[in-house]
Amino acid sequence: MTINEKALKLHEEWNGKIETVAKSPVKSREDLSLAYTPGVAEPCKVIAEHPEEAYRYTSKANTVAVISDGSAVLGLGNIGPLAAMPVMEGKAVLFKEFGGVNAVPICLDTQDTEEIIKTVTYLAPAYGGINLEDISAPRCFEIEERLKATLDIPVFHDDQHGTAIVVLAGIINALKVVNKKKEDCKVVINGAGSAGVAITKLLLTYGFTNVIMCDKTGIVSKSTEGLNWMQQKMTEVTNPNNETGLLADALKGADIFVGVSAPNIVTPQMVASMNQDSILFAMANPVPEIMPDVAKAAGARVVGTGRSDFPNQVNNVVAFPGIFKGALEGHAKQITEEMKLAAANAIAGLVKEEDLSDENIMPEAFNPEVAKVVAEAVKSHI
Amino acid sequence: MTINEKALKLHEEWNGKIETVAKSPVKSREDLSLAYTPGVAEPCKVIAEHPEEAYRYTSKANTVAVISDGSAVLGLGNIGPLAAMPVMEGKAVLFKEFGGVNAVPICLDTQDTEEIIKTVTYLAPAYGGINLEDISAPRCFEIEERLKATLDIPVFHDDQHGTAIVVLAGIINALKVVNKKKEDCKVVINGAGSAGVAITKLLLTYGFTNVIMCDKTGIVSKSTEGLNWMQQKMTEVTNPNNETGLLADALKGADIFVGVSAPNIVTPQMVASMNQDSILFAMANPVPEIMPDVAKAAGARVVGTGRSDFPNQVNNVVAFPGIFKGALEGHAKQITEEMKLAAANAIAGLVKEEDLSDENIMPEAFNPEVAKVVAEAVKSHI
Repeated sequence: MTINEKALKLHEEWNGKIETVAKSPVKSREDLSLAYTPGVAEPCKVIAEHPEEAYRYTSKANTVAVISDGSAVLGLGNIGPLAAMPVMEGKAVLFKEFGGVNAVPICLDTQDTEEIIKTVTYLAPAYGGINLEDISAPRCFEIEERLKATLDIPVFHDDQHGTAIVVLAGIINALKVVNKKKEDCKVVINGAGSAGVAITKLLLTYGFTNVIMCDKTGIVSKSTEGLNWMQQKMTEVTNPNNETGLLADALKGADIFVGVSAPNIVTPQMVASMNQDSILFAMANPVPEIMPDVAKAAGARVVGTGRSDFPNQVNNVVAFPGIFKGALEGHAKQITEEMKLAAANAIAGLVKEEDLSDENIMPEAFNPEVAKVVAEAVKSHI
Repeated sequence: MTINEKALKLHEEWNGKIETVAKSPVKSREDLSLAYTPGVAEPCKVIAEHPEEAYRYTSKANTVAVISDGSAVLGLGNIGPLAAMPVMEGKAVLFKEFGGVNAVPICLDTQDTEEIIKTVTYLAPAYGGINLEDISAPRCFEIEERLKATLDIPVFHDDQHGTAIVVLAGIINALKVVNKKKEDCKVVINGAGSAGVAITKLLLTYGFTNVIMCDKTGIVSKSTEGLNWMQQKMTEVTNPNNETGLLADALKGADIFVGVSAPNIVTPQMVASMNQDSILFAMANPVPEIMPDVAKAAGARVVGTGRSDFPNQVNNVVAFPGIFKGALEGHAKQITEEMKLAAANAIAGLVKEEDLSDENIMPEAFNPEVAKVVAEAVKSHI
């Protein structure tokens, strides 16, 4: 049986990968009067008077809503809310298993930006945080920004920021391995969607100065046509030397390549044109922008992918469970740039200096310490 | 410690009465590839092609959304969505513990009818059913009716129909005890809100012909002023003899009284004016319309209340878990009048004929058979 056949069979057996379980027993009439009426009126009255007490008396304290409109699901594209459910349930499983965070999948039957913003606003009270998931660009940028501006709980689009945080963590460690400084590096990000934009922003916040974005047509510059509003905005802070041309042109003399794009679009010649000790994160799934062995043979020093069957897996699962765990424990109102940087540094720090190597820059996803360490880092910046 | 103090303390210890638990393990890389990417794409693709397969591969199969706007919470009134959370979590606990149904509390930060309808419509894909809860009348009628008209999953306002079903179940058994026929009975419903209207409707559907609704101003008739649209509609099918006056006037010669109203508003004199072998359901909480001993002393034969410390507790918990269990198992698109009648008959039937008495008309809420029997009854009418 292939992994796909096995996955389908298991999904049928599970018949839903998550369930709601009661923490309060109702085995007797007294139990019922404590967990439900009349006793339940007491916490209700306290919360009505002091809304912040919801963190003490309800599951708002430890529950995140995983919200998608099904418009940009994994490699599947716009499959809609119902078909997105298995992914959102999977995300909820990861939240719980890796971070101890309860997560509730919410799949919205609308792809209208205004309607999504309103709906999430109406839903927000019961949750300690909102994880936006698999919403297509550029809508995802506006939805997140406007929700962040109005809600008093963290709103975090994981496809953007989770990805950016783990990429930065990997780059922090890769730079140690190759002994380069961020100020000296030319970075090329290929893919100008949600992940590419967020990675670019976080690398700039971290202190990289020469970051070039590319999309299908090549280098994104002020003169590129057909850019969306967010890509246009990015031209103001990227590509400082105003380079033009194709991806191959951008990569000449580059130190770091980050691909969140398409299979097999980076050639050995392109890798050979990069600076010495080049770093490549080829994260297209399941087939990367260039296979690690090919990249290495062409001169790359550190190569990461999204896959678990190669070294240096760049996987959001080391980020989002710990980030929300920390945010919830600290009753954070938002997830700030400082928290993201702290999370990236914490993830990088989980690989001991003496263990760092070309093939070991990322922590093991299944290490139960990861979420705890990330959570502490996030909490210390609330 | 009083029950209220104990309830508050326990709510703090629970820190949320429900949690999300993973049914699919992620202890290894292979687990991850089956429950999440890349394996998860398989059920997604199947559902995108065949939406009904969501019942096979996702938690839609066994999950209900418990949705409130916090506008009419228990005896607390309009306390808003956040303060309503403990009640909705409690409801979710009862769904799981009594019916084995997963339930997710959703507390909406809007009390606008149109916005609620849109929001619930957008939310619907992930759930096998919608349980509306503690939404004030008459908005609750329109919200439910319009959602029922457009959604392809059951929408059920428990304050209306759950209450109506258990009341009808109790009346079915009480009529056996007193040996009267529904066609011969005059029924008075006191309280013309969501529960009162729904009880009246279901009793008419069951075959009662002379049902009179009363509200704070007395008997509801075609000439009553200040009625909302639903109450006006009800005047067309109730009060066939066009009686007028106060509750006391309505009760003269009545066989059955159902109170979903206010404490202590039925006097012994009113009970004494009813027909022989009168049946009273005095369900105001926590203090009923008349205390059972007072009603009995005044001549009542069968008295039920909402309380667990008196005989004949009329409690929704014998209805909604089994109703949704059956609806989910049968992939029902709606909960019809036939299903409600079947549920009421099934609940009534759980008390054996030989055990029926003035003080034993309702099944024990903690009997694990209740939800199963109700579910089977509902399923047989899908």
